[in-house]
Amino acid sequence: MKSEVITVGSEIMSGRTLDTNFRFIARKLSSIGAQVVWHTSVGDEQESMADVLRIALRRADVVVMTGGLGPTPDDVTRNVVSTVLGRNLLLNDSVLESIRERYRLRGVHMPSINERQALFPKGAEIIENKVGAAPGFLLKSDEKLLFVLPGVPLEAEVMLEQQVLPKLRGLTSTLGPEQVVLRTVGIAESVIAERVSFLDKPLEGAALSYLPHDYGVDVCLTFKSGEPKHVDLRKKAAVKQVKSILGHHLYGEGDAKLEEVVGKLLVSKKLKLAVAESVTGGMISELITSVPGASRYFVLGVTAYSDESKREILGVPEQLIGEKGAVSKEVAVEMAKGVMKRGLADVGISTTGIAGPGGGSAEKPVGLVFVALAARRKTSAKELQIPGNRALIARRASAFALDLLRRHLL
Amino acid sequence: MKSEVITVGSEIMSGRTLDTNFRFIARKLSSIGAQVVWHTSVGDEQESMADVLRIALRRADVVVMTGGLGPTPDDVTRNVVSTVLGRNLLLNDSVLESIRERYRLRGVHMPSINERQALFPKGAEIIENKVGAAPGFLLKSDEKLLFVLPGVPLEAEVMLEQQVLPKLRGLTSTLGPEQVVLRTVGIAESVIAERVSFLDKPLEGAALSYLPHDYGVDVCLTFKSGEPKHVDLRKKAAVKQVKSILGHHLYGEGDAKLEEVVGKLLVSKKLKLAVAESVTGGMISELITSVPGASRYFVLGVTAYSDESKREILGVPEQLIGEKGAVSKEVAVEMAKGVMKRGLADVGISTTGIAGPGGGSAEKPVGLVFVALAARRKTSAKELQIPGNRALIARRASAFALDLLRRHLL
Repeated sequence: MKSEVITVGSEIMSGRTLDTNFRFIARKLSSIGAQVVWHTSVGDEQESMADVLRIALRRADVVVMTGGLGPTPDDVTRNVVSTVLGRNLLLNDSVLESIRERYRLRGVHMPSINERQALFPKGAEIIENKVGAAPGFLLKSDEKLLFVLPGVPLEAEVMLEQQVLPKLRGLTSTLGPEQVVLRTVGIAESVIAERVSFLDKPLEGAALSYLPHDYGVDVCLTFKSGEPKHVDLRKKAAVKQVKSILGHHLYGEGDAKLEEVVGKLLVSKKLKLAVAESVTGGMISELITSVPGASRYFVLGVTAYSDESKREILGVPEQLIGEKGAVSKEVAVEMAKGVMKRGLADVGISTTGIAGPGGGSAEKPVGLVFVALAARRKTSAKELQIPGNRALIARRASAFALDLLRRHLL
Repeated sequence: MKSEVITVGSEIMSGRTLDTNFRFIARKLSSIGAQVVWHTSVGDEQESMADVLRIALRRADVVVMTGGLGPTPDDVTRNVVSTVLGRNLLLNDSVLESIRERYRLRGVHMPSINERQALFPKGAEIIENKVGAAPGFLLKSDEKLLFVLPGVPLEAEVMLEQQVLPKLRGLTSTLGPEQVVLRTVGIAESVIAERVSFLDKPLEGAALSYLPHDYGVDVCLTFKSGEPKHVDLRKKAAVKQVKSILGHHLYGEGDAKLEEVVGKLLVSKKLKLAVAESVTGGMISELITSVPGASRYFVLGVTAYSDESKREILGVPEQLIGEKGAVSKEVAVEMAKGVMKRGLADVGISTTGIAGPGGGSAEKPVGLVFVALAARRKTSAKELQIPGNRALIARRASAFALDLLRRHLL
């Protein structure tokens, strides 16, 4: 079953809004084995919307369309569907009544423009909207299924999960391909690929793909469907082969995040963490605390942006900063030791560096970063030259510091 | 000039990766008046890629394609372009040499699969990649322009800005509609819409749209093109009308960010800032330091996740935490005062709250947040009940704290 997602909205096309609906819908459809082959976005112009819908209905078995169901004149999705499928718009009295009821409950008069939201193409099956005003609908035409949902992310998500997926689940009898994702840090895509090509035994039945992102590479193994038992054996063998290639660069599988992996290790070892940041500006603390339950192992983060803060709060000796500079391996180590002590923690990690765009020199260029770790009986530090802009340098430095911690904990 | 953006990648289609390239490209193309009418995403399968490219070249004048230029076998964009346009792939020696050079500089042997990245369809103009390995290319065919860029966001962005836009700028003679974006925080979309409907004089020649995002609403005024002088007068009048409605909720125009606005105010007033965070976990520090030059006004950030840290580093009295709880207005105020003192700063801001999903109670539910500000002769604090998940609560709390600071500085 091939599917296409169409997201409608001029705010998407101008780049003002990041289209998050597609990602959500794609994940959910993939999860039930409905292969998402195409995604198209288009603005609120009737003509280009109609063209896009025609193309989708030609090539896909299932089309999920979001956006353009609001009450204002720029919301034209219902009109476009009506035109393309040749079905007149009819007023649905019970939907109209329930929209009126929503306004009554809020003690507000319903503006007459809201009546449009009760219009549906002839033959449409209503998809109820429990969290917003505009219901969606399902139309069947020539063996094709067209689901139309509102563009508000929360509404689209709830309606997809509660109403669209159950309807589709019965229809996706053929399961899609199985996928295993291995997440790595500190190793290049082409180095992994080369190591794969040098394997003694080729990977049987697995297609490999590489997904480099801001600070690491995800290795995806895709297994074509087949006899469950057979697939499972092949899968285990192939995953084992690739894992042996990745070694300690592998930090997790699937959606695992570096900060989650580190958090679990800290919990299991009953250790408390403190973080001292300069070039990463608070990003490491933010990543760590984004994990629910982080208060069990995270005690203190210090963003020491001035030399005074490094000295006063973290106890980095003034002389050391004077001699080696704030961006140095020695200062990084003192920062990690200092924050560990100040936070009464068992481990401290730190970053210092030049995030740019200004502040670089020939000796200490933009992208020069030191990450360090301090534990009870040990310190370690690493010098990095990180390519990228300010945001990427901070993101990558954060990942390298977390990875230094991960390897220490292993 | 109508344009289409094609983003390629199976990781996009499965929903694993959020496609941020499209948004960036759409913004940049719109900014030079090149109307983005279509956006299509497709996986790494040659056949569907070829179909999508054929449709795009039929309907658009300019096509920008990203992704699938990597060295591994799943990267097939160059092959698809070669097939669709009937142009053989040729090896470019100087590109091959520069890829080799990249590896030499890093002291690493170049895997032979990287040679593929030096293959280009006949007649292609190379688009240099200064931040990564794979160059892009431009092909002209039947008055159409096809730009092909790598999928790594940073690389695509730099190449688009530095090489694609200059090439296109000469070609976009017809300007698109003008748009003014007013950014607000702390006021609901429907409240703004109601105030607009109560205006004495209707907005002349401006179409209004509302774009709510994570922590605020952007109000977009779109002006149809016309006689420049006429448009300019109408524009000024309409923008003035809307600004009067928004009042102090308006924090900037266009792409202005709250943390940039606050940074500029701190620079102009020559004030130093320190931040104490609990529920926001370092996010405020990270936002502030994401602005280049933040070291001129930002001195210290403390993420005090444990009661000990609040006491030891920020000097919050133990008794106060015992009596009022760590999540209280009083503790928020003491955190702001403490961090201001410890950082030798002129202003301190703070957050404390319950981010969830656990840790809430009937008295102090998830989403309860206190933000506070301390200055030389003044403190202020605000209680908030923020809807959303852990990430959104932190994001919104950060914005409210920054807004508290902004209003104090005004």
